[in-house]
Amino acid sequence: MLELYHAEPASNSLKVLLCLKEKGVDFVSHLINIQAFEQHDPAFLEINPDGQVPVLVHDGTVITESTVINEYLDQVFPSPALRPAAALECARMRIFTKYVDEYFRPSLSQIGWQLMIHTITDKLSPEEFAARLARIPREEKREKWRIAAAQGYTAEQMAAWRRTLAEGIGKMEAALAKGPWLAGPHYSLADISCFAMAAHMPARFGDIMSDTVSPRVMEWHRRMRARPAVAAALAMPSPLKAAARPMRQ
Amino acid sequence: MLELYHAEPASNSLKVLLCLKEKGVDFVSHLINIQAFEQHDPAFLEINPDGQVPVLVHDGTVITESTVINEYLDQVFPSPALRPAAALECARMRIFTKYVDEYFRPSLSQIGWQLMIHTITDKLSPEEFAARLARIPREEKREKWRIAAAQGYTAEQMAAWRRTLAEGIGKMEAALAKGPWLAGPHYSLADISCFAMAAHMPARFGDIMSDTVSPRVMEWHRRMRARPAVAAALAMPSPLKAAARPMRQ
Repeated sequence: MLELYHAEPASNSLKVLLCLKEKGVDFVSHLINIQAFEQHDPAFLEINPDGQVPVLVHDGTVITESTVINEYLDQVFPSPALRPAAALECARMRIFTKYVDEYFRPSLSQIGWQLMIHTITDKLSPEEFAARLARIPREEKREKWRIAAAQGYTAEQMAAWRRTLAEGIGKMEAALAKGPWLAGPHYSLADISCFAMAAHMPARFGDIMSDTVSPRVMEWHRRMRARPAVAAALAMPSPLKAAARPMRQ
Repeated sequence: MLELYHAEPASNSLKVLLCLKEKGVDFVSHLINIQAFEQHDPAFLEINPDGQVPVLVHDGTVITESTVINEYLDQVFPSPALRPAAALECARMRIFTKYVDEYFRPSLSQIGWQLMIHTITDKLSPEEFAARLARIPREEKREKWRIAAAQGYTAEQMAAWRRTLAEGIGKMEAALAKGPWLAGPHYSLADISCFAMAAHMPARFGDIMSDTVSPRVMEWHRRMRARPAVAAALAMPSPLKAAARPMRQ
């Protein structure tokens, strides 16, 4: 039995949803409302002490880290293959999944967090927010939340993170000049990792990702959205859809 | 033909050297003196525009990122296997290699950099150092060097990075309570990634890694050093051995 604890279909949660839908395997969905800080509830911390989604539970065994989960799913459910058989193409895939984890996603997350944190924290008293902060297990996450809520990040930091997003879209544009998919001839976890981050970027970062700036990435984005598995993943329930969509400003 | 551009046998360079020596495959070694900033030389930037070692060149094709390189080497030279065949054990391996890349190694690198940068930069005039900085391709690396050389990191930052090192050694200690190797029954890229970082820690971070604090990690460290491949990797040439060993203070 497969269970997935995940947030709305975006970022790292979307990454694993895309993989599961592509594989066509059944799973039990546990929606965690990260805008309500449910990932820091004691009950969830028993599943993942790091207080992060997504988390896969396979026959009772917990597997964390979306990139590791997707490699695991591809090993356990090998069809359709989402890791290229050729070693070099597989290395190109991992260069992308690693870049997303270490550069692209942190930058996107910092920017998004700065833009949306006050729509969450303004509903809380300072004492309530301090109590929420204290529940965050990882120190660097606590710092990220605290700084964003207090003074906010600087214009220089926000600009540096935007440059990283532009760099990432540039890497994708360059790769798509060489083949139909990011790692080469085959659809792979590289496309899944990048799309999980870039899915909503045309609307929010039109200066970084658009038909003018990144035509190949936009064409790839349209091909991605046309995949039934991608459409199914994006149609998963979202607590945000009922809320004020704070990032769309 | 395999070629490896690498620094002295430590950190990410040691990671790939350990893998190559374990596989027993021949390779041409190109030693890059990172204390002399050779990784930012225009000739090297043509090989890796990010200005980072190690870099593998396999029959003329460049592969970057030590963790990706090791997965690639295990696919191309499958014997002895360094990725567990069992999917769950393989996921545990990747949890460690990813943790090393995202948390453990950056913390170790920041601390090491702060401790050693002045032994490098004090030989340079401010103009020479500025010229060196300007050659660093990645903005976040430039910032890391600039801050360490200028005001230095704060005591709070250094303490946070040391806490991360202690956390990492704690994760290793917990894993070794369950099996002889970090991912479980089999020696794997997890052991290689962690040892590449922890090889010299008992001498430098005795409060974090010692027979008192982390007895299982120390016992594993001795078993690691007893492997012929590990001894061979550690015996690779080092520009540091001829210099003042600035980190041993």
